Amino acid sequence: MQFSVLVETRLRDGVADPEGATIERSLPALGFEGVSGVRVGKAFRFTIEADDQASARAEVEDMCKRFLTNPVIEDATITVAPAGGEG
Amino acid sequence: MQFSVLVETRLRDGVADPEGATIERSLPALGFEGVSGVRVGKAFRFTIEADDQASARAEVEDMCKRFLTNPVIEDATITVAPAGGEG
Repeated sequence: MQFSVLVETRLRDGVADPEGATIERSLPALGFEGVSGVRVGKAFRFTIEADDQASARAEVEDMCKRFLTNPVIEDATITVAPAGGEG
Repeated sequence: MQFSVLVETRLRDGVADPEGATIERSLPALGFEGVSGVRVGKAFRFTIEADDQASARAEVEDMCKRFLTNPVIEDATITVAPAGGEG
């Protein structure tokens, strides 16, 4: 069975985010006011083959720890859903 | 009123994604099988000050078009929610 996965990583609180800071500084010059706390992370989307949703999630959590994120400075949010019109 | 915003960008279908392709090629060597269609995008999180949810969303959509994404090659998914324990 196939599952669609979204892994969204973000830097942990307290870790400097120069990209986010640059965006935040630039927005007022473009006329966008009232934006604060900009943090930039990554979004990985993929399809995984697994027996059920629980084992898909377990495999993705393991992938996150070992490969996709740096757990020292990053948090990951994992979303697993059965793949719709695929397979 | 403050709103928490998540903007998740991804490359459009058909646009080459070398980072995703590299991840996909690397996973079997680490023991992760059955993963396909890896696409890597960005996730922007920030807080925005606006009168209501509709105007917050409109401002974020405008920001996406003008600044955060390249609409020629990227799609963006916008999530706006009232900021929880803030402000």
